[in-house]
Amino acid sequence: MVNRQINVIQYGLGPIGASIVRLMLQKPELRIVGAIDVDPAKAGKDLGLVAGVGRELGVIVSSDAEKVLRGGADVVVHTTGSWLESVADQLLACVTARTHVVSTCEELSYPFRKHPQLSQSLDRCAAANGVAMLGTGVNPGFVMDKLVLTLSAVCRRVDSANATRIVDASKRRLPLQKKIGAGMTVEEFERQVAAGVIKHHGLPESVAMVADGLGFTLDEITETIQPMVASRDVKTEFLEVAAGQAAGVHQVAHGLHQGRPLVSLELRMYVGATNPGDTVELVGDPDISMTVPGGTHGDIATAAVAVNCIPAILEAKPGLRTSRDIPMHYYAGASAPEVVHPASC
Amino acid sequence: MVNRQINVIQYGLGPIGASIVRLMLQKPELRIVGAIDVDPAKAGKDLGLVAGVGRELGVIVSSDAEKVLRGGADVVVHTTGSWLESVADQLLACVTARTHVVSTCEELSYPFRKHPQLSQSLDRCAAANGVAMLGTGVNPGFVMDKLVLTLSAVCRRVDSANATRIVDASKRRLPLQKKIGAGMTVEEFERQVAAGVIKHHGLPESVAMVADGLGFTLDEITETIQPMVASRDVKTEFLEVAAGQAAGVHQVAHGLHQGRPLVSLELRMYVGATNPGDTVELVGDPDISMTVPGGTHGDIATAAVAVNCIPAILEAKPGLRTSRDIPMHYYAGASAPEVVHPASC
Repeated sequence: MVNRQINVIQYGLGPIGASIVRLMLQKPELRIVGAIDVDPAKAGKDLGLVAGVGRELGVIVSSDAEKVLRGGADVVVHTTGSWLESVADQLLACVTARTHVVSTCEELSYPFRKHPQLSQSLDRCAAANGVAMLGTGVNPGFVMDKLVLTLSAVCRRVDSANATRIVDASKRRLPLQKKIGAGMTVEEFERQVAAGVIKHHGLPESVAMVADGLGFTLDEITETIQPMVASRDVKTEFLEVAAGQAAGVHQVAHGLHQGRPLVSLELRMYVGATNPGDTVELVGDPDISMTVPGGTHGDIATAAVAVNCIPAILEAKPGLRTSRDIPMHYYAGASAPEVVHPASC
Repeated sequence: MVNRQINVIQYGLGPIGASIVRLMLQKPELRIVGAIDVDPAKAGKDLGLVAGVGRELGVIVSSDAEKVLRGGADVVVHTTGSWLESVADQLLACVTARTHVVSTCEELSYPFRKHPQLSQSLDRCAAANGVAMLGTGVNPGFVMDKLVLTLSAVCRRVDSANATRIVDASKRRLPLQKKIGAGMTVEEFERQVAAGVIKHHGLPESVAMVADGLGFTLDEITETIQPMVASRDVKTEFLEVAAGQAAGVHQVAHGLHQGRPLVSLELRMYVGATNPGDTVELVGDPDISMTVPGGTHGDIATAAVAVNCIPAILEAKPGLRTSRDIPMHYYAGASAPEVVHPASC
């Protein structure tokens, strides 16, 4: 892999961005050379204090993205938002500055179906600047797409793919518990869904990635969001959910061909989940399934996947890449032996 | 991925090669343009008859590899042997003919540690000819290395990696049951191990791939082969094992650093196994594990992985590649949408 110092700019210092900063500090080859956040409470302060490192890092958070990007880096880790249209200008600025991009923007994970024109623009701009761009994370980006596709390698034929992710939100941060509607009445939950406030982003993107990877032609991708209703009182560190209230989301996406679901992804994220875990089931020749008992931790795993992809994105073909294209594994921050010696034979 | 006819030569028509031929016939884009086997019982016959297709394919199996390779193809699927030194000339002939290679040679899956010089020669020759070479299969190549590494993407830190594969050999072909010593006395089993006859190939290769992928420095890779002794009489379609006789192999490989195992792979392949399955366990931050209930079927999965890698190898960087480098998933034989349009932005 990579045998040199990798200069990184962190773009976005919410909980995930801060978590990524702390993780990057564990990798000796990664050097954080810049940090961007528009929040006046963060800009102008030392990155170490903003990201909860517990010490100063000598990098001042700036709200002037253009200036930081002009300073140059190998890669930008981008964690500012879930909607591709609202972050597209940020992404274009990064690749125009000739930096590779690893982003946790959910809609960037597989944007071709929902944003065909924008996907093409991002791809062209990245390719023209000789850099690669990747949207990734744990979901979308890993458990419900990359892992599904990877398992499919042992199949002679795949007829349909299912993945289920059950997350116990009890131990997760308060903003997440609120985001999934925990403690709301069912009526309030439904109003918040209708208003677009309650929504896990990325299931349709994962459906599309899996379908394309498996060679399925989809007519339509459907998505529903229902409340998981608490059957008993649940108390977390942050809030209480009474029986009959919403405990979280039950979100299901299907990729349909002639009305038949070829890809089905089901997310149950709620406080008090008793059987958390990630499950993949492939129906085909042969059938095969896989379980991750307890499941992957959302925030931790998203930060890990983003950081672990940094060496891979540096070696990827320029343009807009996806988790499907990228060989993913842990990045120790110490280089694996380089064995490639192109020469004459 | 690939949007055109892919011309393939099948090199080796043992059980795995024949299984690969039958699978390739299910992929409309793959066209088998040549077949090589030195066995006089196969050479000169139609490939369809040799490979158990049940009909003629209009491709005559030839023992003259050079001649077949001279005919040209995009990729050779190579399935002639487990020892790299004994098949290296075949592999060099393939890349010299400018064909990509997907091989099930176990020692090719990660040959850098055991065969550093030969690895370099193969890499250089492939790169010089602008083609890629890959050794893969289910084990080595997938369950005990690729899958381990893929799961590690969600970890912030990995301290050690373990994989266990339990295979019920009762339903497998007779040569495999014999190869693992089923029905031998323990003494005979141990003689056959000492003679190098009983041995699953590839555990040290998987250990090395996992260690390099996770950034571990190994001082040593150890490997032991013990009999699984039958605790009761077992009868398969092909043979009988009495209680007290060997029912199969229990093979363990460790990657050690200062005497401590950082990678541990355990294979139990025997007739009458009651709890078959593949398990991966990563110790780190966080710990994570994964189970494939029932496990992946060895022969089927090796054929599937080899065929599924064909589109990926055509797009890989020239030279000697490994499962670690290659994004792996099922190949439908129908092309996924091409979304890359390198152009100016």
